[in-house]
Amino acid sequence: MAAWKNLDTLEAWKKIAADEKRVNIKEALTGEAGAERMKSYKVPMAAGMTYYYGAKAVDDELLEKLCALAKEAELTEKYKELYEGAVINTGEKRLVLHQLTRGQLGADVIADGVNKREFYVRQQERIAEFAKKVHAGEITNAAGEKFTTVVQIGIGGSDLGPRALYMALENWAKSNHTLKMNARFISNVDPDDALQVLSEIDVAHSIFVLVSKSGTTLETLTNESFVKDAIEKAGLNPSDHMIAVTSETSPLAKNSGYLAAFFMDDYIGGRYSSTSAVGGAVLSLAFGPEIFARILNGAAEADALSKNENPMENAAMLDALIGVYERNILDMRSTAVLPYSQALSRFPAHLQQLDMESNGKSVNRFGEPVSYQTGPVIFGEPGTNGQHSFYQLLHQGTTIVPLQFVGFVENQFDQDVVIEGSTSQKKLAANVAAQIVAFACGKDDENRNKYFEGGRPSSIIIGRKLTPEALGALLAHFENKVMFQGFLWNLNSFDQEGVQLGKLLAKRVLAHNTDGALKVLSDLFEI
Amino acid sequence: MAAWKNLDTLEAWKKIAADEKRVNIKEALTGEAGAERMKSYKVPMAAGMTYYYGAKAVDDELLEKLCALAKEAELTEKYKELYEGAVINTGEKRLVLHQLTRGQLGADVIADGVNKREFYVRQQERIAEFAKKVHAGEITNAAGEKFTTVVQIGIGGSDLGPRALYMALENWAKSNHTLKMNARFISNVDPDDALQVLSEIDVAHSIFVLVSKSGTTLETLTNESFVKDAIEKAGLNPSDHMIAVTSETSPLAKNSGYLAAFFMDDYIGGRYSSTSAVGGAVLSLAFGPEIFARILNGAAEADALSKNENPMENAAMLDALIGVYERNILDMRSTAVLPYSQALSRFPAHLQQLDMESNGKSVNRFGEPVSYQTGPVIFGEPGTNGQHSFYQLLHQGTTIVPLQFVGFVENQFDQDVVIEGSTSQKKLAANVAAQIVAFACGKDDENRNKYFEGGRPSSIIIGRKLTPEALGALLAHFENKVMFQGFLWNLNSFDQEGVQLGKLLAKRVLAHNTDGALKVLSDLFEI
Repeated sequence: MAAWKNLDTLEAWKKIAADEKRVNIKEALTGEAGAERMKSYKVPMAAGMTYYYGAKAVDDELLEKLCALAKEAELTEKYKELYEGAVINTGEKRLVLHQLTRGQLGADVIADGVNKREFYVRQQERIAEFAKKVHAGEITNAAGEKFTTVVQIGIGGSDLGPRALYMALENWAKSNHTLKMNARFISNVDPDDALQVLSEIDVAHSIFVLVSKSGTTLETLTNESFVKDAIEKAGLNPSDHMIAVTSETSPLAKNSGYLAAFFMDDYIGGRYSSTSAVGGAVLSLAFGPEIFARILNGAAEADALSKNENPMENAAMLDALIGVYERNILDMRSTAVLPYSQALSRFPAHLQQLDMESNGKSVNRFGEPVSYQTGPVIFGEPGTNGQHSFYQLLHQGTTIVPLQFVGFVENQFDQDVVIEGSTSQKKLAANVAAQIVAFACGKDDENRNKYFEGGRPSSIIIGRKLTPEALGALLAHFENKVMFQGFLWNLNSFDQEGVQLGKLLAKRVLAHNTDGALKVLSDLFEI
Repeated sequence: MAAWKNLDTLEAWKKIAADEKRVNIKEALTGEAGAERMKSYKVPMAAGMTYYYGAKAVDDELLEKLCALAKEAELTEKYKELYEGAVINTGEKRLVLHQLTRGQLGADVIADGVNKREFYVRQQERIAEFAKKVHAGEITNAAGEKFTTVVQIGIGGSDLGPRALYMALENWAKSNHTLKMNARFISNVDPDDALQVLSEIDVAHSIFVLVSKSGTTLETLTNESFVKDAIEKAGLNPSDHMIAVTSETSPLAKNSGYLAAFFMDDYIGGRYSSTSAVGGAVLSLAFGPEIFARILNGAAEADALSKNENPMENAAMLDALIGVYERNILDMRSTAVLPYSQALSRFPAHLQQLDMESNGKSVNRFGEPVSYQTGPVIFGEPGTNGQHSFYQLLHQGTTIVPLQFVGFVENQFDQDVVIEGSTSQKKLAANVAAQIVAFACGKDDENRNKYFEGGRPSSIIIGRKLTPEALGALLAHFENKVMFQGFLWNLNSFDQEGVQLGKLLAKRVLAHNTDGALKVLSDLFEI
């Protein structure tokens, strides 16, 4: 059994904290030594990608200390406990099994009398079978016509991850002529969200995926009723157009109101559920189950690489260690995720949930307040768009923000144009390369307004092309990074008690059971 | 002439900085006194909206000090200098005239021999005339068929603001049956961005708005060539399908390659250009010029309210003062913008550019380094989506993030459903009301994992409905807030030198004129 200790009680951490030396990124990246460093400071990742950290504020000495920290914190042992079914989610007393949806990393996990890997695989098979029947026209609308659109109804983890993954592969699938169905997403309880999607789709040829683990998520059930209304107004029967993704014990399971129900369970948290039935149903319908399987393969490969106990060969672990160093030693409170790929435009929103909901905590896994900083604020937009927006602050603001770039050698469509001697894809790549050096090395200028201090740390993940495997690998990389950071901070990264109070108070408002300031606000909105 | 001084040299600021008293938000908002405070801590805004700041960490004593700061910093005088045509953008030696696109607040501004208000109005009239002809079928494609879609090609300020405004009113216009044309946007140099939009529209019935002040923005010209290719492949003539928004001296002006050209000038920065021809062309085509005029009216009303020298009656000024207090005294480094309106889903991305590009600076307007923090990191997503995502960190994380909520009494579509006794719109509003109190007051719990510390500051702007006027007023509120904050920090909020270095280095990469680490990165991307 690994020992779960607060970060500031670890000897390796005390050594890091006591060391006042700081790496000067600008100097480190200059000249031939800088070129050598950029080449060699890297870790291979899954799906042929590579994590480059030459522009981070680390050197061999510090890396050695971080490796000692990883060892003393028993990151590898804790990961093993997790994937072999220990009760890692202490608050809710649950196992944490999302990796099992894509592979098996250790001993069988038997819970509630069930082999969980077999359970998740069985759901994938059921989804694949269903999706194939829809694509083949064996499952159709009442008029016997094929479904052309799939609409996911879910919020939070049932929305952001699957949506980001769909958007990431939509162009790739179009370009390969493998897009089976268009996907749309309804999430917000704002009625205008559902009404907009419904105004833009052909309801008669749409299949709706209702995603709610408990079967009681108010936002999702509310949106379901908009959808049912729309289906009925089109003279159709909702039960011919809806499937459910839920837990086996929910009111949505074995319910004649749905064409089919596919299952996840309590051991897969919402923000970690993209590779479960939550993402599996919509992505298998949109792209075909074989494409979804390729996403899983990329993630499985990344999960396996995360087992390596040497951080210098484990990109997720090294990324996590450097992040904790930036957060707790360099006092950097936010991190920007900057994919140079329009297809990843909503990937930062998914990572924002994944990271901030997992590690935005002030108590350790035993419920004791910690005396150090935990998870950072995560934000980001795709490049080059961000360059024309908030990069000003990143370059010359008074707050230093560590940067996580992602870039690819090739674009997804097999088409491009040459302007001024280069393709758009080369321009895109040239920009991300330039940004890394600009942030790290800065520029002297007598005009202080045109002066760039440099010293702003970044890493970059480089892949050949954003394929299903690469996407799965990226997803798992960040999940595992966040997990390792949670281990370092000694947090329970798998609950989310911080969202409960708002829910509770909202219910009181709707029941008119309020007073004081809440009553005033409630009156202002005429509730 | 106002005196431009660094924040930390102002006597009023020194008094604020010397005061170690902190307002306990939780106590302040409790009980009947808290209700009274929530009711009375408000400032009327334009378009019938109201700014409520009862959940901010301020009290009457501190507000008085902030008012003294506003006076000593001569915020009102500086605003007057700006709207009457002083060279406020010192770095680029330019006037700053975006307010003139929607009204005139003071004396005539004559620049380059032209009355600038008349110039901007003339462009609006030309756009209105053009849009009406397109809507009436007097300007058509070569086959004499009406255009149905308008596609904006631009990046940064030519994209985010107009896109956020379009998305904000798309449902409203649909609901009122006034949507004249669908709008789409192409921005990223990533070729997959243009290719995706082109794969989804009907090119033969689309009109493209190329937006580039200089007429030389590489991303935009690159995307133009994708569009021209697509038009030609459809057997059509690009010049029948394209208009330009540019400066009068650019190569795009008076160019037979475009159906028409509409003009802005150097006195309107990209991020402040939504109310100029940059937003005017696409929004007038999509919604009709009379709707665009209503956006301008809302903005004009907000601009006029910003002239009030009493911060207690000037929402933008008070918002700015409280933000500087949070940034420099309470050491809060980021701000979340959380609109409870799906229609405002991209408004935070616009504000992210507006704020971070304007005030993410380390030197004052005279080019001297400042010794205090400036603009914060801005991020946000619409509620209730964010509640199911990153709110965990906002409630229980170790970093306190000030929150800027926006909410409306009514939704945009005239349609809703009742579930469990309330409409979706009421549920949405109940949630934002609940969040404000949850963040401010927290909750005691013996289980520290379920304990909420509270004391997390927020403000909320409440309006009846997101109409064109309300949208214009919101846009101008934040522009003026950012402007006042720039005045307080003594920054030039109207240049963006921080984006130049990356551009320069990217050009060198594309010209293969690199060495060292940049050459390594360039090779990794096979450039």
